[in-house]
Amino acid sequence: MRALVFHAPGSIAWEEVPDARLVEPTDAVVRVDTTTICGTDLHILHGDVPTVAAGRILGHEGVGTVVEVGDGVRTHVPGDRVIIACISGCGVCTYCRAQLPSHCLAPEGAAGIGWVLGHLIDGTQAELVRVPFADSSLHGLPPTVPDELGVLLSDILPTGFEIGVRYGSVQPGDTVAVVGAGPVGLATVATAGLYGAAQIIAVDRDPHRLDVARGLGATHTVDSSAPDWKDQVLATTDGAGVDVAIEAVGIPETFTMCTELVRPGGHVANVGVHGGPVPLALQDLWIKNVTITTGLVNTTTLPMLLRLVAAGRLDVGAFVTHRFDLADVLDAYQTFGSAAQTQALKVVMTR
Amino acid sequence: MRALVFHAPGSIAWEEVPDARLVEPTDAVVRVDTTTICGTDLHILHGDVPTVAAGRILGHEGVGTVVEVGDGVRTHVPGDRVIIACISGCGVCTYCRAQLPSHCLAPEGAAGIGWVLGHLIDGTQAELVRVPFADSSLHGLPPTVPDELGVLLSDILPTGFEIGVRYGSVQPGDTVAVVGAGPVGLATVATAGLYGAAQIIAVDRDPHRLDVARGLGATHTVDSSAPDWKDQVLATTDGAGVDVAIEAVGIPETFTMCTELVRPGGHVANVGVHGGPVPLALQDLWIKNVTITTGLVNTTTLPMLLRLVAAGRLDVGAFVTHRFDLADVLDAYQTFGSAAQTQALKVVMTR
Amino acid sequence: MRALVFHAPGSIAWEEVPDARLVEPTDAVVRVDTTTICGTDLHILHGDVPTVAAGRILGHEGVGTVVEVGDGVRTHVPGDRVIIACISGCGVCTYCRAQLPSHCLAPEGAAGIGWVLGHLIDGTQAELVRVPFADSSLHGLPPTVPDELGVLLSDILPTGFEIGVRYGSVQPGDTVAVVGAGPVGLATVATAGLYGAAQIIAVDRDPHRLDVARGLGATHTVDSSAPDWKDQVLATTDGAGVDVAIEAVGIPETFTMCTELVRPGGHVANVGVHGGPVPLALQDLWIKNVTITTGLVNTTTLPMLLRLVAAGRLDVGAFVTHRFDLADVLDAYQTFGSAAQTQALKVVMTR
Amino acid sequence: MRALVFHAPGSIAWEEVPDARLVEPTDAVVRVDTTTICGTDLHILHGDVPTVAAGRILGHEGVGTVVEVGDGVRTHVPGDRVIIACISGCGVCTYCRAQLPSHCLAPEGAAGIGWVLGHLIDGTQAELVRVPFADSSLHGLPPTVPDELGVLLSDILPTGFEIGVRYGSVQPGDTVAVVGAGPVGLATVATAGLYGAAQIIAVDRDPHRLDVARGLGATHTVDSSAPDWKDQVLATTDGAGVDVAIEAVGIPETFTMCTELVRPGGHVANVGVHGGPVPLALQDLWIKNVTITTGLVNTTTLPMLLRLVAAGRLDVGAFVTHRFDLADVLDAYQTFGSAAQTQALKVVMTR
Repeated sequence: MRALVFHAPGSIAWEEVPDARLVEPTDAVVRVDTTTICGTDLHILHGDVPTVAAGRILGHEGVGTVVEVGDGVRTHVPGDRVIIACISGCGVCTYCRAQLPSHCLAPEGAAGIGWVLGHLIDGTQAELVRVPFADSSLHGLPPTVPDELGVLLSDILPTGFEIGVRYGSVQPGDTVAVVGAGPVGLATVATAGLYGAAQIIAVDRDPHRLDVARGLGATHTVDSSAPDWKDQVLATTDGAGVDVAIEAVGIPETFTMCTELVRPGGHVANVGVHGGPVPLALQDLWIKNVTITTGLVNTTTLPMLLRLVAAGRLDVGAFVTHRFDLADVLDAYQTFGSAAQTQALKVVMTR
Repeated sequence: MRALVFHAPGSIAWEEVPDARLVEPTDAVVRVDTTTICGTDLHILHGDVPTVAAGRILGHEGVGTVVEVGDGVRTHVPGDRVIIACISGCGVCTYCRAQLPSHCLAPEGAAGIGWVLGHLIDGTQAELVRVPFADSSLHGLPPTVPDELGVLLSDILPTGFEIGVRYGSVQPGDTVAVVGAGPVGLATVATAGLYGAAQIIAVDRDPHRLDVARGLGATHTVDSSAPDWKDQVLATTDGAGVDVAIEAVGIPETFTMCTELVRPGGHVANVGVHGGPVPLALQDLWIKNVTITTGLVNTTTLPMLLRLVAAGRLDVGAFVTHRFDLADVLDAYQTFGSAAQTQALKVVMTR
Repeated sequence: MRALVFHAPGSIAWEEVPDARLVEPTDAVVRVDTTTICGTDLHILHGDVPTVAAGRILGHEGVGTVVEVGDGVRTHVPGDRVIIACISGCGVCTYCRAQLPSHCLAPEGAAGIGWVLGHLIDGTQAELVRVPFADSSLHGLPPTVPDELGVLLSDILPTGFEIGVRYGSVQPGDTVAVVGAGPVGLATVATAGLYGAAQIIAVDRDPHRLDVARGLGATHTVDSSAPDWKDQVLATTDGAGVDVAIEAVGIPETFTMCTELVRPGGHVANVGVHGGPVPLALQDLWIKNVTITTGLVNTTTLPMLLRLVAAGRLDVGAFVTHRFDLADVLDAYQTFGSAAQTQALKVVMTR
Repeated sequence: MRALVFHAPGSIAWEEVPDARLVEPTDAVVRVDTTTICGTDLHILHGDVPTVAAGRILGHEGVGTVVEVGDGVRTHVPGDRVIIACISGCGVCTYCRAQLPSHCLAPEGAAGIGWVLGHLIDGTQAELVRVPFADSSLHGLPPTVPDELGVLLSDILPTGFEIGVRYGSVQPGDTVAVVGAGPVGLATVATAGLYGAAQIIAVDRDPHRLDVARGLGATHTVDSSAPDWKDQVLATTDGAGVDVAIEAVGIPETFTMCTELVRPGGHVANVGVHGGPVPLALQDLWIKNVTITTGLVNTTTLPMLLRLVAAGRLDVGAFVTHRFDLADVLDAYQTFGSAAQTQALKVVMTR
């Protein structure tokens, strides 16, 4: 089969590799029909994720067709059209039982992380992929939902909803500020209405992304390069701050923006991937009764979000901005890696 | 009347002042029978709380007897024996309605903080005190509960329980590390069992305080000056960390100890009062699905904790280490301010 | 002033009575600009509520203008335009502190019920009304919200949302069946989307009400007089039942419909007012892990719902079907009491 | 092997049967070292559970030693000492993912119930038992915990804790009434302290059981045959009722006792197994803001309760009143079936 292989920082190639095959009785092999690229893949490409070994096939998102299943797989059969969740949970360890498969202790000798595809084992940017714990990691996709909507459920929509909206404890009537209108920030914008947010304020420097945010449900947008960005956000409140501030960039400045925007008793949900420490202003925050959360997605809400997409109650087609043939995955990386120029959100590759 | 007056950093005096009197119809005047000193009072004395004006009577904890009530007070009459909550909530503003009187918008023209006694208005280290919003701030004390247990309910026990145990989401079976075994840390130790903590690990450098912690419910103690303090704590777990880590000191080092001790999916509850920023290791924590909370007490659990104390289900007598006559309040400050030598936890002053 | 007085079952009159006036320092007197009639008022008229004495002025919903306030009222002044909440909570008793003013112990010597207006004291179907605990019971109404939307917030919208949607624990993606599409059932239909319900199924015999339900957010409607009504509802699910079934009629048959519709692990929220016992099929339900709730509204969500209405995020204008002059209140009763013929939902009376 | 076989109502026998053996790759075969009898087994014996076929081996509780595991079992190996949970959840279906394995859709062609052992497949009152979904249904037992404490974790302690204490939402400071001091009622008494109940009132007619209740943590006991039983319970409260009432008998009278005891805003948790409908006094309850729950145990808290037992924080030895050799299981049934005379709580049978 052919696959996108990571050789070294800055070096990836679409090349012939041995076919994916079953290893454990709980595995499935899936033919990848549609896949996409995540910001994390760019981090890997740039050499920021040292746990990714040379030779690894990248990708942790995908829609495909089951080709073969192990003896221990009970709920899927060859021919099933499925979404591949980006988290592979064993379902049995302490963390899986606690609904935290993001920290699954089981898979692949690398205890403590449920993100294994395209990270610790070969991933979905390939013609075939081996999926561990297939019963819990694959989700049947109804024929009415097209591949390119299904692939949004592998990672980005659950991430925005679980780590942004739910960890942020969005409640009906809340004012929610989302700092960073990249794909994952937009995923929080698109799902904050599921808990009845009254105001959703997208904050970013890119006017195009702010436009997209409005289309996905933002009620207000603020240009974060404006000197009065903070006043603009607070003007939507009683002056005391927003109920929920969601960090969706991953740098100290945007995290601090969130802790400055949140009202007493409010929530800061960090969704961004950070590369270093941030200064936390505890001299101000110790008395503010705030809650700060972090997290890797669990994909436990994938089935529910899929129901909403299938019912037409979650309109997320605007996420897909570019389409490629799977064999042109390097072009897709180029487009996604130059998002400021290409205005790419999700680039979708189809077999 | 006589009262303990703050004149300037480092300068307090027990002196004659005009009697406390009713100002608003919702006020009560209370004769102070028993009061105590909080770590915050020492911060004020050292000049760390600039919102405290010269001439202010200090103190926000107390048990007393109602002397006079305003026309708008419905639930207390002169002669009632009461606990004075350290938080004065109006009961009507957005924050009070949200069960956050710690951020009450109403009192005294200094919107945004429910801690007014001994801070923005005169306090309880006096023979008489004016208590605003008496209906919500005073709690009848049954005759079976002695003053010196009652006074623990003004601030320290609710603080430990609300900001440590409840914000920390302690659950039955949890392993809880409490970093700092001063009075407020011990209050979390004493109340963590109310949510069924299986293991409570007190961490401090002072062997005497660790002894007291054992008496109040700690199942393990760890000397934080030992090079292997972290290993000692983790040895009580499966190695992945504690379920809940409670910061009860207020310096960057102890906060970082907590973020290093907590397991994926766990909680860090900050109770300590901080004077500066702390470095938050988001490069490690972004993926750990942790929750970090901060807060000023609301005293909403005071009635419930009082019920438990009255029923003999919360044994907290060991908190009171020294007793003084109210007129000797300067000696009490001396003793409390030298806790490392005097082994003081709570010094109680009685009229 | 003139008011609608209850004299005996079946006997009410619009007549001259003494003006409402302040009694307690925490009272306000409000000029009633807009009021409406509740199903409970019809129960009173029919003699079903024996706690209503002869001579009582009816009505517990209203929008008005503050005329006079007692000395203890801090947050309202004459001239303020306000919504009158149907629940009068003292803010201090055990139940008010527990966010259950529906069971307020304080008011009017009739401890245990927060619904006093038009029940234990004179109500809002009058030119003037005395409102106890004005600080907590009155809510400022922004000029952009018309009276006839504001009056929906006195009772019916909070009732549907609090007792139906929130007590029913509606979650994103849920399928919710609402049995009974009268005003309060429709209020649950209109607010179930605030928690992201994926499917909202209105069940009633009246095709007109089902039409209105569709307009307010129902995704499906089922004629409850059809022999296969149950199959029709279950067809929207996987066959195991709905996540949440809301009873909004108040008779045994509809309550039983709900317990038959609910899936294992689901919720039944009773909103209807019942006059007798219902048989609870515990032989089937003991093993089904269901939760059944009941309740009188607390109006604690009134400010949040008002924010949503003011922001245009909750479109509820369709509730108002008929408009009368306040002096024509008897005609309004006639219209509302013949809802099957008149298709009345809320009849609004304006000064 | 030998096993206790149900032949017909009233007819059981200890007899030779074919050895238990693996059927599915996710199965284990366990040698039963210790087992016990549940009230449900008596219901089966009396013919009240028609889903139990003739020829079925009874029993759903046990501690044993793993003999053999299927290819799909990852976390247990022959020789492991384990507790057998009474619920067999597949871990993958909708209900298992929702933490409701009590309603697991998978096992054995009898979709919708996670209780299969000794019900739909052969059970634990045998020398060997086949355990489906061994990874999720078996829990390693530390050597420090004796078999007869371990076997209490198969069913009774999780049932009392999950369906009584947690579904009943016991909170710190609560007053909890437990109606019925049989084994399952006592399990709620023994675990209510894990959420800090201030008062636990056991209500029963049997003075011996009330004595045992005191030993397990009841702070008060009330003889339910006394004419003033209700007044005695209410005397422990402010007169308005208990916070939580737990039904642990399974007849209409005791359920009604619970709905009469509960305060406004309180909880009724039904744990008893009912054979018929009960009249629910909705004419009184519709306005009381009560929550009523039912349920079959999920055993999701088994690992946590095991930690507490292992740590010596849950003292439950008093549950075991009689001990038998496994071969004398018929005597054990006789003793357990005559509990009023024998004062049996749990009768334990050891190989």
